[in-house]
Amino acid sequence: MSPVQVPLPYLEAEAAARAARDATIPAAYALPKSAYPLPKNVTGVLASSGILSPDELAIVNLDATTLTADIAARKVTATAATQAYVKAAAVAQQVTNCVVELFEDEALERAAWLDAELERTGKPVGPLHGVPVSIKDHIEVKGHDTPSGFIGLVGKMVAEKDAHLVKILRDAGAVFFSLMAIETDSYLGVTSSPWNTDTTCGGSSGGEGAILAFKASALGVGSDIGGSVRAPAASTGIYSFKPGVHRLPNVGLIIPIGPQGYDGIHGTQGPMARSMRDLELYMQVMAAAQPWLSEPSVDFKPWREVAAPKRLRIGVLEDDGVIRPVAPVRRAVALAIEKLKAAGHEVVPYKQFEYAEHWDIVSKLYFIDNGDSVRAQLARGNEPIKPLTEWALRNTGTEPLTSAEYFKLAGRRDTFRHKLAQYWRAQGIDVVLSPALPGPASTHGNGKYWGYTCYWNLVDYPAGVFPTGLHVDPALDTEGAYTPRNDDERHVYATYDAAKAVDAPIALQVIGYVGHEEETLAAMKAIAEVVQV
Amino acid sequence: MSPVQVPLPYLEAEAAARAARDATIPAAYALPKSAYPLPKNVTGVLASSGILSPDELAIVNLDATTLTADIAARKVTATAATQAYVKAAAVAQQVTNCVVELFEDEALERAAWLDAELERTGKPVGPLHGVPVSIKDHIEVKGHDTPSGFIGLVGKMVAEKDAHLVKILRDAGAVFFSLMAIETDSYLGVTSSPWNTDTTCGGSSGGEGAILAFKASALGVGSDIGGSVRAPAASTGIYSFKPGVHRLPNVGLIIPIGPQGYDGIHGTQGPMARSMRDLELYMQVMAAAQPWLSEPSVDFKPWREVAAPKRLRIGVLEDDGVIRPVAPVRRAVALAIEKLKAAGHEVVPYKQFEYAEHWDIVSKLYFIDNGDSVRAQLARGNEPIKPLTEWALRNTGTEPLTSAEYFKLAGRRDTFRHKLAQYWRAQGIDVVLSPALPGPASTHGNGKYWGYTCYWNLVDYPAGVFPTGLHVDPALDTEGAYTPRNDDERHVYATYDAAKAVDAPIALQVIGYVGHEEETLAAMKAIAEVVQV
Repeated sequence: MSPVQVPLPYLEAEAAARAARDATIPAAYALPKSAYPLPKNVTGVLASSGILSPDELAIVNLDATTLTADIAARKVTATAATQAYVKAAAVAQQVTNCVVELFEDEALERAAWLDAELERTGKPVGPLHGVPVSIKDHIEVKGHDTPSGFIGLVGKMVAEKDAHLVKILRDAGAVFFSLMAIETDSYLGVTSSPWNTDTTCGGSSGGEGAILAFKASALGVGSDIGGSVRAPAASTGIYSFKPGVHRLPNVGLIIPIGPQGYDGIHGTQGPMARSMRDLELYMQVMAAAQPWLSEPSVDFKPWREVAAPKRLRIGVLEDDGVIRPVAPVRRAVALAIEKLKAAGHEVVPYKQFEYAEHWDIVSKLYFIDNGDSVRAQLARGNEPIKPLTEWALRNTGTEPLTSAEYFKLAGRRDTFRHKLAQYWRAQGIDVVLSPALPGPASTHGNGKYWGYTCYWNLVDYPAGVFPTGLHVDPALDTEGAYTPRNDDERHVYATYDAAKAVDAPIALQVIGYVGHEEETLAAMKAIAEVVQV
Repeated sequence: MSPVQVPLPYLEAEAAARAARDATIPAAYALPKSAYPLPKNVTGVLASSGILSPDELAIVNLDATTLTADIAARKVTATAATQAYVKAAAVAQQVTNCVVELFEDEALERAAWLDAELERTGKPVGPLHGVPVSIKDHIEVKGHDTPSGFIGLVGKMVAEKDAHLVKILRDAGAVFFSLMAIETDSYLGVTSSPWNTDTTCGGSSGGEGAILAFKASALGVGSDIGGSVRAPAASTGIYSFKPGVHRLPNVGLIIPIGPQGYDGIHGTQGPMARSMRDLELYMQVMAAAQPWLSEPSVDFKPWREVAAPKRLRIGVLEDDGVIRPVAPVRRAVALAIEKLKAAGHEVVPYKQFEYAEHWDIVSKLYFIDNGDSVRAQLARGNEPIKPLTEWALRNTGTEPLTSAEYFKLAGRRDTFRHKLAQYWRAQGIDVVLSPALPGPASTHGNGKYWGYTCYWNLVDYPAGVFPTGLHVDPALDTEGAYTPRNDDERHVYATYDAAKAVDAPIALQVIGYVGHEEETLAAMKAIAEVVQV
């Protein structure tokens, strides 16, 4: 890749945007000089920084479910929780560059109101009373800008009202306190995983991954059209869930690069969290608000309480045939198989069905306009194209499709979905257990392969990611000799280095059958309980 | 309209197709000469024909729910029920021209097997044990042709397997015995309503309407993308239900005129029946089969038992602003309002939301390929275009859309759906009560206006039709002076004549909120019980 020529006006705008963002981080929470030089693994910085009190550190160690219960039980106030998380987020920004905007005053004002309401009525306003929630930058939060990673949109996208999901969370008692980066490499710079700052936090909901992994947010919301809540969760060692696209409300998610009315492939929002049960809590809160009553594209589908079968039949995808996972992921999968069998589950091999056909369809669907809208948004801000964006758009730029050609492509998608359903059913499995990524978090600029996640977007199957508790260990995870089968695999093997990826968390993905969000989460919970070390 | 020039090879093919169809009607069931001349209202012919025994007449008077219960209780055999319905269908064909194919031997063989199974196991094979079911011609029934109304496809569409819905019905114990006309004016000729053979049976599932109204089928299946189960039900005085498009399995519905993969507007299958509870039975049977397990586009949504609120809030649409309904429909609506109020329901006016925008979107979505595929199918059979088809295609034939133009149109559809949901919610209503058609069944060749039904296809709201029990009475329903507001309305008023439409049944439509099939049917049941005379 030749060095990118960056025009000067862009650099000026970039500096201004970064300065504006930095101004939202209170100076009082600046890391002391003694914190530097930072280690590659910054997960201990929060505790060692002295910025949070012991009580505050105890608060940020809780998941959302416990935190809101403690607030309801008057053990903790919403104000104390918010203060703790604002401080933690300020630190997270300094070590991982994950924040687009931090709004301490607004958050504390909201927290004070929640404390007063609890005092006045004796009960929480909702199931998320006092929980500080971070929101991905392209989701509208009233009064805040949603430039969605494009510098050309900075200052032009101030939301007049909350996105549907934000309204639901607000009604449930959430406190919004920060917006996370939509991209891991944008005009605001590169965002890192706190486990190893040489590695990416994943994308596109990467800021959420970084802040949650750093324990600097209690609950996060991202979006996923190809793996964008799952890749960050896998890269940073948190939990995430991508439901079917019509399960959760999506009004208020700004999609500056997709034509409205495009039905080819849809994204969905989804929770990013610090525990399995927080994912479930999020789904319950969303469904309890009956979002289908005002957003007609949301399925009318109350949340069902579902328990996983005692003995799950789990199909394990060890290799999708395109990129064999690298050593630490293979180690995690092998350990999972062993533990699941020992726990009495039925574990069978699962082969990816027609990967090549999937990729041919999905890659065309993602850039249905041949990348024109991405290029137009970049041009609007005089913004240079980032190398990974350039890579993603490498096959675009030809003639746009006629409507008849588009319907033909969508027809292939429908046929693929139908055939996969028959194939899945023939396996007799409850879920598939799979890598989320072919490796741990990539070193910056090297994360290109999303085939283990986007496959399930094409067919709209629910899929979640959980951390195994394992981390890259050069003593165990150094890669042996291997002859790559293709260029993509060659890239993965050429850029993986156990020493460089040290401490990066290893995650796994659980996929359930289309429409079965409850069963998928229940199975993932049962599997995580067995697999996690 | 200038007289259509019909090329000779087409006429030969038409004669051959009609002869082939006629050959499936056993000569033994030919109406006696004494039955002629037939009255316009042929609903009494079945009883007077002498073709059915008193026991058989008693059988065809039952709805599907009672029939299957009687078979399970050994009061009636499946063989007797099938024999009765085959005879009745043969008669129905002679008086309304509603049958594409009648297959007596196959049906009786199946019935004999069902009787033997009941004998052997002591219990019915499923909830439709022994129910004779008629199927619209474009739905695949193994071993039978599905030319879907195009002569060019006759003999070329023999189904290799059952459509998904047919498999479910078969597993539930149904007996298939006939295929009904997909169109009311096709190469097989014109199909009439048995209530008044000068009037149409409606379309496109018109044959189903005619045969059910004649009590010559116990349960039918049609499909609806613009009103195609509702218009026939309204025209013939039976019940029908159009659920949301992802509620029922649709694999095996042959759509020779739509591009695969087209998401602009979808049709759905739906039950056509002789009682409210038969509609519910059908929906229950479909859901109980878990069609989502093999057809991934079907919503994972078990059927819920729902009771209507004691006091419904009903929005009444008296006039959609384009075609004011003619006298008998106004009479039915006025009587319904009066009775519903007297029964304690809350009745409020409902105004159609942005009708013009709806029509502009939906009319473009219906003929997204500019009618090319319809013309191609007609050309394939050297088939002349029928006047009503020509009328429907009158605005097509321009340049096909680019994909970007199509997405723009689909975006307008999505915006419309979203705005309507907010509007509906603001009314605080449970359901809308509306005409299904602006008048009773039209005289042949004059039914053009489907705005009261297709509106709800665009937004995918569930909608059903029930007969009020009222029929056109020239003494009550002669139209007064009225100045039409537009050409479509002028056509309706110019072609409506109470004397010509005498005895035609008057139906009403009930529409519920998107995704709420159970609530819609429950409300429709409560309303029908009050309204029906």
